Amino acid sequence: MRTKDRVKSQDQHILNLAEIVGGSRSILYQKEDLLAYDCDGFTIHKHLPKAVVFPKNTQEVAEIVKYCSENNLPFLARGAGTGLSGGAIPLNGEIIISMVRMKKLISVDLENRRAVVEPGFVNLKLTNSISDKGYYYAPDPSSQYCCTIGGNVAENAGGAHCLKYGVTTNHILGLEVVMPNGEIVEIGKDGIPDAPGYDLLGLITGSEGTLGIVTKITVRVLKNPEGKQTVLAYFDRVEDGSQAVSDIISAGIVPAALEMMDKTAIEGVEAAAFPVGHPKDIEAVLLIEVDGIAAGIGEQIDQILEVCRKRNVREVRAAGSEEERARWWANRKTGFGAMGAISPDYLVQDGVIPRSKLPEVLSRISQISGESGLRIANIFHAGDGNLHPLVLFDARIPGESEKALEAGSQCLKVCADVGGTITGEHGVGIEKREEMRFVFTEEEIAAQTEIREVFNPHNLLNAGKLFPSPSRCAEVKKEMKAQAIS
Amino acid sequence: MRTKDRVKSQDQHILNLAEIVGGSRSILYQKEDLLAYDCDGFTIHKHLPKAVVFPKNTQEVAEIVKYCSENNLPFLARGAGTGLSGGAIPLNGEIIISMVRMKKLISVDLENRRAVVEPGFVNLKLTNSISDKGYYYAPDPSSQYCCTIGGNVAENAGGAHCLKYGVTTNHILGLEVVMPNGEIVEIGKDGIPDAPGYDLLGLITGSEGTLGIVTKITVRVLKNPEGKQTVLAYFDRVEDGSQAVSDIISAGIVPAALEMMDKTAIEGVEAAAFPVGHPKDIEAVLLIEVDGIAAGIGEQIDQILEVCRKRNVREVRAAGSEEERARWWANRKTGFGAMGAISPDYLVQDGVIPRSKLPEVLSRISQISGESGLRIANIFHAGDGNLHPLVLFDARIPGESEKALEAGSQCLKVCADVGGTITGEHGVGIEKREEMRFVFTEEEIAAQTEIREVFNPHNLLNAGKLFPSPSRCAEVKKEMKAQAIS
Repeated sequence: MRTKDRVKSQDQHILNLAEIVGGSRSILYQKEDLLAYDCDGFTIHKHLPKAVVFPKNTQEVAEIVKYCSENNLPFLARGAGTGLSGGAIPLNGEIIISMVRMKKLISVDLENRRAVVEPGFVNLKLTNSISDKGYYYAPDPSSQYCCTIGGNVAENAGGAHCLKYGVTTNHILGLEVVMPNGEIVEIGKDGIPDAPGYDLLGLITGSEGTLGIVTKITVRVLKNPEGKQTVLAYFDRVEDGSQAVSDIISAGIVPAALEMMDKTAIEGVEAAAFPVGHPKDIEAVLLIEVDGIAAGIGEQIDQILEVCRKRNVREVRAAGSEEERARWWANRKTGFGAMGAISPDYLVQDGVIPRSKLPEVLSRISQISGESGLRIANIFHAGDGNLHPLVLFDARIPGESEKALEAGSQCLKVCADVGGTITGEHGVGIEKREEMRFVFTEEEIAAQTEIREVFNPHNLLNAGKLFPSPSRCAEVKKEMKAQAIS
Repeated sequence: MRTKDRVKSQDQHILNLAEIVGGSRSILYQKEDLLAYDCDGFTIHKHLPKAVVFPKNTQEVAEIVKYCSENNLPFLARGAGTGLSGGAIPLNGEIIISMVRMKKLISVDLENRRAVVEPGFVNLKLTNSISDKGYYYAPDPSSQYCCTIGGNVAENAGGAHCLKYGVTTNHILGLEVVMPNGEIVEIGKDGIPDAPGYDLLGLITGSEGTLGIVTKITVRVLKNPEGKQTVLAYFDRVEDGSQAVSDIISAGIVPAALEMMDKTAIEGVEAAAFPVGHPKDIEAVLLIEVDGIAAGIGEQIDQILEVCRKRNVREVRAAGSEEERARWWANRKTGFGAMGAISPDYLVQDGVIPRSKLPEVLSRISQISGESGLRIANIFHAGDGNLHPLVLFDARIPGESEKALEAGSQCLKVCADVGGTITGEHGVGIEKREEMRFVFTEEEIAAQTEIREVFNPHNLLNAGKLFPSPSRCAEVKKEMKAQAIS
């Protein structure tokens, strides 16, 4: 057979998988090819997969999954590989099921405000496909120009405009999922606010690829807001900037986005691809966008400016054109990568805090920076209290990677201690497994792993992610079972 | 001991439970007292509980649950008993754990826009407690003047304003839950858009009291909208009214509420406690409310009126005062009960459809009415496609209850067939167990019952609700297990 001829592996599994996906152009199995798949956006852990397969449709995904299950081969799904917590890293030499060829926009139904996409469809393309008709897809992670909606579902991705519009889970109306035994199920009914039965849609969304592989997604699309205004507000003191954030929200204003960058972050973004001329000597900048009915925009901006003035804002700029606004957003959205301009390496963290704790937490992060001797930049979704401390380090200096990981973990501890949590949108993945203990008891973790077992009893799908090392959990589970009344 | 002296039961379980809750004033066990607890708002099935206990705090709930588990006594939680699908009916002679004494408003934190309540706290009291500071709690089921927030969480209750603001699950930030083994767990962290781990908050919310008993709830509160306007629009043809609903939403307007009543419903509400003078000869009335920034309200109303005119609206009235607006809402919100003015009995159903199918589905419901010989009134959340057909019948006529149940079920089938589902806010409970098969495969139902087993392995908590009779499920599960690869 032609397929088998062309795949030159000695490994029967590779040959069989190649046959499922239709030949050598749909499978990678040689080391030099696999190297590109040894990590995702979390680059600190690396592992080679056994192979990467590229199915074209749900049926092929189901056959691959069935084959892996029957042959006890670990497997996981991968979108664009932009995830920041290591969710797509093949820790156990997995078969990676790449979803990039399942990238169709299946249908758009503007009357009922929904669209159906394949998981490999790129986030920004959805908005681009419907913007001429006045609609858009709200969740906008900074990687939206290349990340896939399937990956967004796995990680329950957020983005700058999630303050007003909610994260991915708030926009998912239905899913088709290949379960770990290869069964294809439809979960959720299109557009139903409170569907009968348990909320499996919510359970699958954000489960970081540990419960099933999503093969079709029905999303909500929104009408473009009639009006929009964007301002930059510069503060001499970081406390004033963070207090202004807290005040804006307490005043009852819900901006579409309310982003903050501190001095170190500004140094980075101004040295990178999209400088916008932020003053060099300020301590904090807020990027504030309001949208909605045109007639109400001016009033909201006036209220925001009044709050900023009370908090000693030095200067405020309003975007004069759509082009200027787009540039400001490019400056912000490429901010993580921009750290490369001022540091050989960086580690991004992702904690969440009650907004009112912002001044306190930023000051504690600054202490951690001092103690570790590493600079920490802050670029974040201030409006919803979702912090992104960026720990700057140099991996070539022995011990500095470990120091950065430790400083990142300390930042998460601070977030947990003030009543927040350890991830707002990047997920737990490999990176924050141990930090799960900052926010969950052993019993709570054990209960969650039991849910994973219902879906994924042989733990072949994306094993080793999301939960801390199982030793203690296993003990707890045994105790729980012993205590259970029979 | 004094407690035992005063409880005059021969039943040792009653004596022991009385001791947990502190004596005879906190337990009911005599038949004449139990009669009040033999059903909830779904009055077609009735069963007596074994006893009703009234705990005062989480610790007592946990002790009761532990006692029931250890002694193999079925149990369930009950709020105000306003549920419409029978979720609180003690099918198996349960111990009912009434939450009405756990009714404290624990704390309000307006800066972070949240409040913490006990489950027996009445929905409307929350808004009443914070309205003077300009805030409110959004989910507004029609029973909000007496239903409890704990019950709202169990059923994932909706309400008229859920079109714009979402159902209960969109406003729950954290839960304290007593698990079926008596363990107390905290689920969800306050106000985190995408908490780490699986979305257990979403899983518990709307699980109809089958996974655990909620003992503390952190909810989101919202700032009052700056402006508000309410109009009534009268149509001579029901098709025009339902087409106007579809057109308003397609035009990109999201009203705060968009309710519809048909001719039979109008006859009922005008004959009941809060008549507002709807014309007697119209076929449909829309109650439309818009809110938001004051400056934008007029424009939205103008757009809505234009849509209505295109659909041949006969007359439009705008509320001239807050008093008039409140009266219109009372007329609408007491609509189900108002059916009592024109029919000895009524059965309310709760289907959801894509909005664009509204004209088609209303016409099919009218056919079902014709075929069954029973009048069906429609009072519903038109904006989000959440229908409430009210089947009018007379239980004294032999066979008519069965006919009503059958007509109700047919309405749900129509909803499922056009791509909708069988409940939008009332839950499945006892009432719609068999109709779950309209929207789920046996495999999907089996997967859900497995999740129940993780939480509730001995099925003592609210057994027999939410899923169809288990026979077929059990078989499917066996098959699934046999197929599982070991």
